[in-house]
Amino acid sequence: MVMLILDLLGTFFFAVSGSLLAARKHFDIVGSLLLASLAGLGGGVVRDLVLDDGVPNAFDRPVYLVPVLLAAVLVLTSLIHETRFRRTLLLFDAGGLALFCIGGTVTAHEAGINVVSAALLGLTSAVGGGVLRDVVANEVPQLFNPRGVYAIPAMLGAGLTGLMLELGWFTPYAAVGVAALVFGLRVLSLRLGWHVPLAGGGPGGGTARRRR
Amino acid sequence: MVMLILDLLGTFFFAVSGSLLAARKHFDIVGSLLLASLAGLGGGVVRDLVLDDGVPNAFDRPVYLVPVLLAAVLVLTSLIHETRFRRTLLLFDAGGLALFCIGGTVTAHEAGINVVSAALLGLTSAVGGGVLRDVVANEVPQLFNPRGVYAIPAMLGAGLTGLMLELGWFTPYAAVGVAALVFGLRVLSLRLGWHVPLAGGGPGGGTARRRR
Amino acid sequence: MVMLILDLLGTFFFAVSGSLLAARKHFDIVGSLLLASLAGLGGGVVRDLVLDDGVPNAFDRPVYLVPVLLAAVLVLTSLIHETRFRRTLLLFDAGGLALFCIGGTVTAHEAGINVVSAALLGLTSAVGGGVLRDVVANEVPQLFNPRGVYAIPAMLGAGLTGLMLELGWFTPYAAVGVAALVFGLRVLSLRLGWHVPLAGGGPGGGTARRRR
Repeated sequence: MVMLILDLLGTFFFAVSGSLLAARKHFDIVGSLLLASLAGLGGGVVRDLVLDDGVPNAFDRPVYLVPVLLAAVLVLTSLIHETRFRRTLLLFDAGGLALFCIGGTVTAHEAGINVVSAALLGLTSAVGGGVLRDVVANEVPQLFNPRGVYAIPAMLGAGLTGLMLELGWFTPYAAVGVAALVFGLRVLSLRLGWHVPLAGGGPGGGTARRRR
Repeated sequence: MVMLILDLLGTFFFAVSGSLLAARKHFDIVGSLLLASLAGLGGGVVRDLVLDDGVPNAFDRPVYLVPVLLAAVLVLTSLIHETRFRRTLLLFDAGGLALFCIGGTVTAHEAGINVVSAALLGLTSAVGGGVLRDVVANEVPQLFNPRGVYAIPAMLGAGLTGLMLELGWFTPYAAVGVAALVFGLRVLSLRLGWHVPLAGGGPGGGTARRRR
Repeated sequence: MVMLILDLLGTFFFAVSGSLLAARKHFDIVGSLLLASLAGLGGGVVRDLVLDDGVPNAFDRPVYLVPVLLAAVLVLTSLIHETRFRRTLLLFDAGGLALFCIGGTVTAHEAGINVVSAALLGLTSAVGGGVLRDVVANEVPQLFNPRGVYAIPAMLGAGLTGLMLELGWFTPYAAVGVAALVFGLRVLSLRLGWHVPLAGGGPGGGTARRRR
């Protein structure tokens, strides 16, 4: 029950990012609903398709549509607006990232997959929705933006969760600790302007230089 | 049998839209075949992947390739051309939309999923192919274009079909009625220039103003 | 065992193309890893999702991550660079194409699907990764580029493999012959500047004229 509420909450915050992107690109409410669904539910659906373990959660339980509809309505009515609440939204998104990378890894592990793939699917749950959102909106995925550290904390969180599951050390307390770590790293990276090395070496590929 | 013929017909009309897009973007026949396949079959394949009920129809029955090949050949030989038949194509596309939103909902319902998700998957069948076509061609999905009403009639059709299936009211007559409604709304929206509210509120978000 | 090594080798060469694209587009290492995974493993994952035959290979056996990680590291450290080795990389990519269209068809056939769909899924294994790589990087798929012949040899290889599987003529010698044919056609097409007819007819659609 707690797990479901946290999951719906994470879905809501990711869905808001989809509806805000639709608003920014002047899409209509159909686009808003589709991008909100992809952002909020897409990562988990891809995870469940790979697990090949029946109908994906998001389709099996229609309650997952509630946060998506809510996000689209709040953005449509401008109750959530990009300039207002910008800071708040980033915090909530960091919360969603932390929850999804742990919850996704646990879900995949429970389906009986090996622990490396479980961690990968946890990462997919956490960042997959945002990639689908950006791809369908015809944007370069924000995930690839060298400014800001987004996937690394999720990788760490999914990896730690997988490791602890494997060693039998995964407890509610451990989950809270990992979530705090992921959340903290993401928020710190925003404050301190960390960034990630580029894909290719050479000038511009170092971590030390600041780019604009 | 009737169902299969209607399904192949709908596939053909959507496939034509894929080949025409490939022609407009100066892709080669490989692009034409891929976009025709995505447009004609992609929505149903996504539906079947989510249903997790064996190999998707389009792969299980190779006859589904016939309309795709036919569409690519007719566009390659310029027998179908965008400026000619434009009106006809829009009518056929509206027919495909009507057939797919109903047929997709019925297929999903028969696979035993809950009715809300059945209607969602019916909608996916109807509009998913077009989204995949546009995403792979690196275009903003036409579905998000605030001019024109495309997804709303399909949502209505899938929702009504789901409701009637649930209540035991779904008969061939009901199916024809829903199809006529979806088709009629789509065609009317083209004639009368209806459009859908934008994702974000504020100026430009109302339904009353006409945009060019 | 030989099959696995060839598969990992093909994965590596496709993964390199993903990391190189990430470097060219100034994505960070997260983008490099994701594009390398999509290019190297995406085609096979889509094939396995359609086959609905348990968890996709790439997730079931974590060893498939090794070529992806290796590709990202070699590009990050500039040990593989686009201008250097350009010719070598094209040769290796042609090798990956040849291996994947045969191996994918065999995998699909073994899963019990009809032979037409087996060949289609073989083609998907061979070219699907590249399409996913380009779509997620927000590029028009290179597959659609009318200059160069890429999918046609793979179609031929997948089709021949399917035909021989159906007739019981598929032996290791036959596999080597088909692989040589696909590889040879791809390399010849690069040398001789072949190209494919455009999707739409009319001027520019012929095969005889050279375009720049």
